[in-house]
Amino acid sequence: MIEGRLHHVAYVVPDIDAALPAFTERFGMVEAVREMMPAQGVEALMMQAGPASVELIRPTDPDGAIARFLDARGPGLHHVAYAVDDIVVALERLAHQGVELIDAEPRVGLGGHLVAFIHPRSGVGALTELVQDHRPAP
Amino acid sequence: MIEGRLHHVAYVVPDIDAALPAFTERFGMVEAVREMMPAQGVEALMMQAGPASVELIRPTDPDGAIARFLDARGPGLHHVAYAVDDIVVALERLAHQGVELIDAEPRVGLGGHLVAFIHPRSGVGALTELVQDHRPAP
Repeated sequence: MIEGRLHHVAYVVPDIDAALPAFTERFGMVEAVREMMPAQGVEALMMQAGPASVELIRPTDPDGAIARFLDARGPGLHHVAYAVDDIVVALERLAHQGVELIDAEPRVGLGGHLVAFIHPRSGVGALTELVQDHRPAP
Repeated sequence: MIEGRLHHVAYVVPDIDAALPAFTERFGMVEAVREMMPAQGVEALMMQAGPASVELIRPTDPDGAIARFLDARGPGLHHVAYAVDDIVVALERLAHQGVELIDAEPRVGLGGHLVAFIHPRSGVGALTELVQDHRPAP
């Protein structure tokens, strides 16, 4: 059995600095990491929100997937991420269960964590991320 | 300052029992509460997902808001919820900040918690719930 813990929810926004006060000032969340991720065509920021995190994603590549998402749907929830202890084992088990993986192999995501995405068709309609994060629960 | 902690994410699904294995079998999440909520026109189920929770919502009223959401958008993420210590104080502060509240007063939600919703226009494009939940962090 994979132990999946709710790790973060991610919003796509046109402007991270404009969106940030809705989390930091309103709820006291604290910025943990902010990175330009040119390979994904985004800038991303992660905030600690109690035992889990909230991510804000801004498109930097006007032809990238996140820019297309924002154009088509406007700002809002983009994906939900679950933490697993061993992402390679998790991906093998999910593939064996017939889960449709976007990433069959983990890649390096925000904050240096290993991540992989599950297709919304296998994610109850939601883009779903796995994150290997050994942070102890607070 | 309100201390907002990521409390749960909620998916709208056409069939809770069909969606459940994607969380229980895949990630080992454990069902915590399941209720028919006729006033909202839904059945809802909450699972523990590590330090936070995952909710599944199924429309029971074909003319209700959740049925319309499912018809228009298909299954997927519906809202994200943040826990606050005192929801009455939180709502007063948010109203004072100009946040557009759907519920100016808290009401009883799943599991008997006091809840209130913030309009997506004030929630970075996402329907946002406040939950007063005094559960200690695990």
